[in-house]
Amino acid sequence: MERIPILKMGPLLLVTIQVDMHDRLAMTLQDDLTERIVKDRARGVLIDISTLDIVDSFIGRMISNTAAMARVLDAHTVLVGMQPAVAITLVELGLTLHGVQTALNVEKGVQLLQRQIE
Amino acid sequence: MERIPILKMGPLLLVTIQVDMHDRLAMTLQDDLTERIVKDRARGVLIDISTLDIVDSFIGRMISNTAAMARVLDAHTVLVGMQPAVAITLVELGLTLHGVQTALNVEKGVQLLQRQIE
Repeated sequence: MERIPILKMGPLLLVTIQVDMHDRLAMTLQDDLTERIVKDRARGVLIDISTLDIVDSFIGRMISNTAAMARVLDAHTVLVGMQPAVAITLVELGLTLHGVQTALNVEKGVQLLQRQIE
Repeated sequence: MERIPILKMGPLLLVTIQVDMHDRLAMTLQDDLTERIVKDRARGVLIDISTLDIVDSFIGRMISNTAAMARVLDAHTVLVGMQPAVAITLVELGLTLHGVQTALNVEKGVQLLQRQIE
């Protein structure tokens, strides 16, 4: 079954989204991620979307929901690697990534999370 | 165009393979990766294959070649996240990942690379 890998890096988990999201894959990701947060006692989640050319309302909501789930499990979420065109589209469409922090890239995201989980 | 993201983590680059590899994608990855090694002055490359259920001779050769390219650019390559079934198949098919180091997961791979690039 298709699934998105979740990589552990110390107290953080890294998710790299590089395939088209659909309902079932999004649900599998949320299941896997919440399970891994608990199992690995993760304190932060990095979601990399550097290969996504488009972030529509479905993906936006999926990311918001994932961040909200992580939050109730005491983990912070940072979205990294957003392409300039995606940022433009998000604002033009009026989509807000509610409750999601962003950082330029994985390195900056790790720094941001490390400050928050200290 | 479809491409595999390359994430920078300090002196290391992380590549997560989660889509089916084909000729063009493999070539794009090798182009991108060699370019990034030089641009980011990376000393190590982690290739995560935790979502791959199958590693055939094509993927095996692609990984070996990528590691060899990284090596001439002074970067070490570690393959991480191999599934048990993949390890079994590799040995049964007699495929050797020539010149490629392996580690259980990203964390162990990072530790291995950090020792080598000191």
